[in-house]
Amino acid sequence: MVDGLSGVAGDPGHSSRHHDVAERGFASDNYAGVHPEILSALAVANGGHVTSYGADPYTAAATEVFKSHFGQQARVFFVFNGTGANVVSLQSMTQRWDAVICADSAHINTDECGAPEKIAGLKLLTVPTPDGKLTPQLIDQQAWGWGDEHRAQPRVVSITQSTELGTLYSADEIAAIATRAHEHGMFVHLDGARIANAAAALDAPLRAFTTDVGVDVLSFGGTKNGMMFGEAIVVLNSDAVRGIDFLRKAAMQLASKMRFVGAQFEALLGGDLWLQSARHSNAMAARLAGALHDVPGLQITRSVEVNAVFAVLPRDVTARLQEQFHFYVWDEHTGEVRWMCAFDTTEQDVDDFAEAVRKEMARAS
Amino acid sequence: MVDGLSGVAGDPGHSSRHHDVAERGFASDNYAGVHPEILSALAVANGGHVTSYGADPYTAAATEVFKSHFGQQARVFFVFNGTGANVVSLQSMTQRWDAVICADSAHINTDECGAPEKIAGLKLLTVPTPDGKLTPQLIDQQAWGWGDEHRAQPRVVSITQSTELGTLYSADEIAAIATRAHEHGMFVHLDGARIANAAAALDAPLRAFTTDVGVDVLSFGGTKNGMMFGEAIVVLNSDAVRGIDFLRKAAMQLASKMRFVGAQFEALLGGDLWLQSARHSNAMAARLAGALHDVPGLQITRSVEVNAVFAVLPRDVTARLQEQFHFYVWDEHTGEVRWMCAFDTTEQDVDDFAEAVRKEMARAS
Amino acid sequence: MVDGLSGVAGDPGHSSRHHDVAERGFASDNYAGVHPEILSALAVANGGHVTSYGADPYTAAATEVFKSHFGQQARVFFVFNGTGANVVSLQSMTQRWDAVICADSAHINTDECGAPEKIAGLKLLTVPTPDGKLTPQLIDQQAWGWGDEHRAQPRVVSITQSTELGTLYSADEIAAIATRAHEHGMFVHLDGARIANAAAALDAPLRAFTTDVGVDVLSFGGTKNGMMFGEAIVVLNSDAVRGIDFLRKAAMQLASKMRFVGAQFEALLGGDLWLQSARHSNAMAARLAGALHDVPGLQITRSVEVNAVFAVLPRDVTARLQEQFHFYVWDEHTGEVRWMCAFDTTEQDVDDFAEAVRKEMARAS
Amino acid sequence: MVDGLSGVAGDPGHSSRHHDVAERGFASDNYAGVHPEILSALAVANGGHVTSYGADPYTAAATEVFKSHFGQQARVFFVFNGTGANVVSLQSMTQRWDAVICADSAHINTDECGAPEKIAGLKLLTVPTPDGKLTPQLIDQQAWGWGDEHRAQPRVVSITQSTELGTLYSADEIAAIATRAHEHGMFVHLDGARIANAAAALDAPLRAFTTDVGVDVLSFGGTKNGMMFGEAIVVLNSDAVRGIDFLRKAAMQLASKMRFVGAQFEALLGGDLWLQSARHSNAMAARLAGALHDVPGLQITRSVEVNAVFAVLPRDVTARLQEQFHFYVWDEHTGEVRWMCAFDTTEQDVDDFAEAVRKEMARAS
Repeated sequence: MVDGLSGVAGDPGHSSRHHDVAERGFASDNYAGVHPEILSALAVANGGHVTSYGADPYTAAATEVFKSHFGQQARVFFVFNGTGANVVSLQSMTQRWDAVICADSAHINTDECGAPEKIAGLKLLTVPTPDGKLTPQLIDQQAWGWGDEHRAQPRVVSITQSTELGTLYSADEIAAIATRAHEHGMFVHLDGARIANAAAALDAPLRAFTTDVGVDVLSFGGTKNGMMFGEAIVVLNSDAVRGIDFLRKAAMQLASKMRFVGAQFEALLGGDLWLQSARHSNAMAARLAGALHDVPGLQITRSVEVNAVFAVLPRDVTARLQEQFHFYVWDEHTGEVRWMCAFDTTEQDVDDFAEAVRKEMARAS
Repeated sequence: MVDGLSGVAGDPGHSSRHHDVAERGFASDNYAGVHPEILSALAVANGGHVTSYGADPYTAAATEVFKSHFGQQARVFFVFNGTGANVVSLQSMTQRWDAVICADSAHINTDECGAPEKIAGLKLLTVPTPDGKLTPQLIDQQAWGWGDEHRAQPRVVSITQSTELGTLYSADEIAAIATRAHEHGMFVHLDGARIANAAAALDAPLRAFTTDVGVDVLSFGGTKNGMMFGEAIVVLNSDAVRGIDFLRKAAMQLASKMRFVGAQFEALLGGDLWLQSARHSNAMAARLAGALHDVPGLQITRSVEVNAVFAVLPRDVTARLQEQFHFYVWDEHTGEVRWMCAFDTTEQDVDDFAEAVRKEMARAS
Repeated sequence: MVDGLSGVAGDPGHSSRHHDVAERGFASDNYAGVHPEILSALAVANGGHVTSYGADPYTAAATEVFKSHFGQQARVFFVFNGTGANVVSLQSMTQRWDAVICADSAHINTDECGAPEKIAGLKLLTVPTPDGKLTPQLIDQQAWGWGDEHRAQPRVVSITQSTELGTLYSADEIAAIATRAHEHGMFVHLDGARIANAAAALDAPLRAFTTDVGVDVLSFGGTKNGMMFGEAIVVLNSDAVRGIDFLRKAAMQLASKMRFVGAQFEALLGGDLWLQSARHSNAMAARLAGALHDVPGLQITRSVEVNAVFAVLPRDVTARLQEQFHFYVWDEHTGEVRWMCAFDTTEQDVDDFAEAVRKEMARAS
Repeated sequence: MVDGLSGVAGDPGHSSRHHDVAERGFASDNYAGVHPEILSALAVANGGHVTSYGADPYTAAATEVFKSHFGQQARVFFVFNGTGANVVSLQSMTQRWDAVICADSAHINTDECGAPEKIAGLKLLTVPTPDGKLTPQLIDQQAWGWGDEHRAQPRVVSITQSTELGTLYSADEIAAIATRAHEHGMFVHLDGARIANAAAALDAPLRAFTTDVGVDVLSFGGTKNGMMFGEAIVVLNSDAVRGIDFLRKAAMQLASKMRFVGAQFEALLGGDLWLQSARHSNAMAARLAGALHDVPGLQITRSVEVNAVFAVLPRDVTARLQEQFHFYVWDEHTGEVRWMCAFDTTEQDVDDFAEAVRKEMARAS
């Protein structure tokens, strides 16, 4: 019998486990798998036929859940991944001749292989900022030149919450950015690949630092929060966008079996799974930072506000630790490393890793 | 405990079933859900941390499975969906000034919202062909003008197997196309969104009508064959492509938790699940055609070679049937409809539908 | 002394004449040079400093001249060449997800190396039409699917007047096209690379078959009408376009010393130079057709409505004629050739060529 | 009689002079018109028919002249304008996934309305540099990450000679940059919009700081050096480029009556017109700087190496001067202005302007 739930319990067929499910590192929150409740939701949504490309009840239900978080005016468009959410969002907010102001450390600038330029033809007007955060003053460095045909026209300010550097905007800081952007006739996009971690850290509803402070469009990250795949473009201001349906399809981000994105988001956001997972990963980062803050010769380099710890330590120590645990060197020049915690990082994982760090640091000195 | 398999059996949390798992229609093979063995494989691959973006053991294992089908020289790149597979393939096979020859009914021409043009800047040189199939002679209508800077340079012939019209190329027909293309210095791309149905219908190994007859690159469809999401670009001739890694990322088709694409493909292609599912859906289409071929006033318009039945019937009958079953009108001008069978279409589904068609046709006459 | 006019009479310096100014062929109207009055106008506009990029009195004066032809609502944007005029026009009339309906023989489809696709991301929805002309019925073959995210959205109908095949739309025919396009919510673009020849042939003011019958935007061709370089985008309906200033610059079509485009257009269109030149080249084509219409074995294949004569004749005759005169084979399959007349084609040129054709045809038979 | 030279002396027809040929300002070298010898060359090249799109004797002759300057291996492609030369050059040097390192003040980054991103899909990796010049060390800030699919791949270093800030690279400095770029497997592009001014200032042959020190491709500026329109892409290393013919056409930069670009370049570069003009404009800038260097309250802010003088002076003085002379404020924040000299700037122009500055400065203090 073909049935979603029964199938899961059935013959595994040619599936084989190829990895150690007890092994977890600190490389990235996308090294983790899928939260069991999400996996369960996928099974629940399986079986039978539903309309493809989003005209299905799971997409509808998940959309309602998003509205409960962001307000009834929210419009939601599911896509495959974060780069897709960012690029389709920004395309929908811009004309062909426009530009986007962002931090030089923004994911759209550093980690998307030029997708904003290559897919959307966007010019990124970048601003150096050590903590990864923009301010009205920093925005003004690039927010000028409207009407000058020689300059790609600044139309969107894109910020990341929480940032690529593990820092956090307060709701007031985002409000100030939105006010300035709107004064200029620009729109605000928020890259929320880790928006759940931000909400958990701020201890605030999602809308408190988005809808309520003037964000126009956001990319809502599901994958790093425990989903298998799937992100959402959430439009809070309909006047800020045009043609998202078409842009999503042309950008190859329209899933045919979209019910499985909706089902995941409903499971994630329908209750507090998103928040618990984010709080947990944030707590694990705090635990790690706490365990290491007094290690001589190791310097925690950035404020630990969400689920990342950045540190500088001797390169040979880094090398020996990487033989035991997965994590990345963030900056080859300074030797700064990044340690990320995920929804499934355990206290034991943290304690084991901290112990290893202490041990290797001791050996180094 | 956070564990893939146990999670599935655990608390469903905020997941709810929003549809009738017993309801199946004939609208599209992507209205179906996920084969239970695939769903099981997703659970098996869950838990623990593995490297993201494809450097994981599931991607590696699935790659080996592809090689077992297509030959050891095959290189495999997983992407999210079919449009992604097609556009990234074609980009990798072309320079910025090149063009692609295809049938005017090709999916890349009719159903991708202009993605080849808008994302890849490709010019499609289309050829009218009633059965959706190209021939060397048809290709020659557009295969000319190399060296003329005023003409986008024909570089790739793209064919679909099985075609959008439910027809099938024989291995010899593809060989003839590849020979002609290669004589011109062009490459051959095969859009295999339903390649499994083609192999089942030809009763031939996958490589018999691809690797062995000169196809250079193909898009391998997983979704319509019972996966949740995920397609593969399979490169059979390394000389035909450049930069797929980068193009995939820039085209927003690089999954972070790629293990879940690999796990699905291993389950699908590691044994004969792919083939059984394809044979089944083909058989259901044959059963439907058989049940309806002698209904007065209903004309089956195309050869039923894979899992689609095309027919012309009175428009009021179509309208009444659509109140009971999901399916699409393929051509608004002629009233031609398309009935698709999926891996989970049952004999009872077919018989019930055929009965309904007979009944409504009788009412019409 | 640095002065425009005196300079022309001055030392030629390192200029050398490298060609025979008495030699003229029938290859293309762009093999011709510049009309002397145009050259004179360039000298008149020289000397001193004026603002670059179009804020100069020559651009302003030429704009007024265009308004006198097309109506006071016309907005004019000068560009370098015809492909630039077409692509910038079409970009300004479309969103990123739109498509353009055109004849399969349209210059934008056949002779611009894919610029509409590669530069503007446009999908061209082509229609076969033997005489190069669209009709409302032909447009309807592609004018459908609005709101379907899988289909690039038809937004513009682009016609060429006179066509690439030397044929001509009547004002009524264009009116019918515009009416149909507007009923569909689409706009009309007219590629007027040879619009002067069309006006001369119709014996009608330029606005009679553009402004007055619903054309929204046109590309006005100066080069083939006797200019050195320079074309104009003429916007007749401001609601049809957005951002042309920016699109022109980004498309690399903004001339810094734009006064020299304006000066040419003022000389061309300020009096009847444009019309005299067009009438002349049309008359030369008619003379050529008249001289050859009764040559046995030579078939004039298309109606001679403007400055082109198409004919089929034996391939060996073509080959021998090409040793004496420049002209192109239009269709390699049929052996059809194209003979173009220019503003400077003389009656003697025509008579000499016709005599040569007769002689070679006689040798052939 | 239709003839180039006679025509120029003929009836001016509807040409009118709309400006004062004795008025010259300091706004830009593209406010100037055309050098009389260039205008004469246009007339010499007129008349008769020659093959369009570059297969004409003027293009051939100008190509030979370029080879005499840059070496016999040089390949030359004429385009309309500087943005076209830059974008087509960079496209030909890159794959779709590549990036270009440049100074943040580079023209390609600041003044081309995003053409590199929007037309070529290029990512610009910018480096802050106060004098507009890159160094090997500055390049290394962005020259990393090859093989990482998340990063657009650095492939070209683009420098401007002379720079947008009026500064100059020595041949040795360019050699060092080229060496570093080549060590990285990258190519060097030189934006030579004012390359003539650079050669004049360096008192060196053009090849001394291009061909001989490892520049791979350059954009050669004709317009600012006294031409009406037209720039050249000069390929010094054939291995650095692919498909320029096609890219030029698709980028709408292929002139049909190309003989008129070639004729201008032959006149410019066949003798020493280019060098005399550049020396003259450089000398005028030096004269201006000399006349103003000791004016109290006025600060010349950058080294005057070519034909630009940058200065800071009181804003009210600037405002009053702009009522009398055309020039631009370069930096609204600091009040820095830019004064450009052209080939036709006279000593009297400079002295008059310097006198006006002195007078207004005196009034200010």
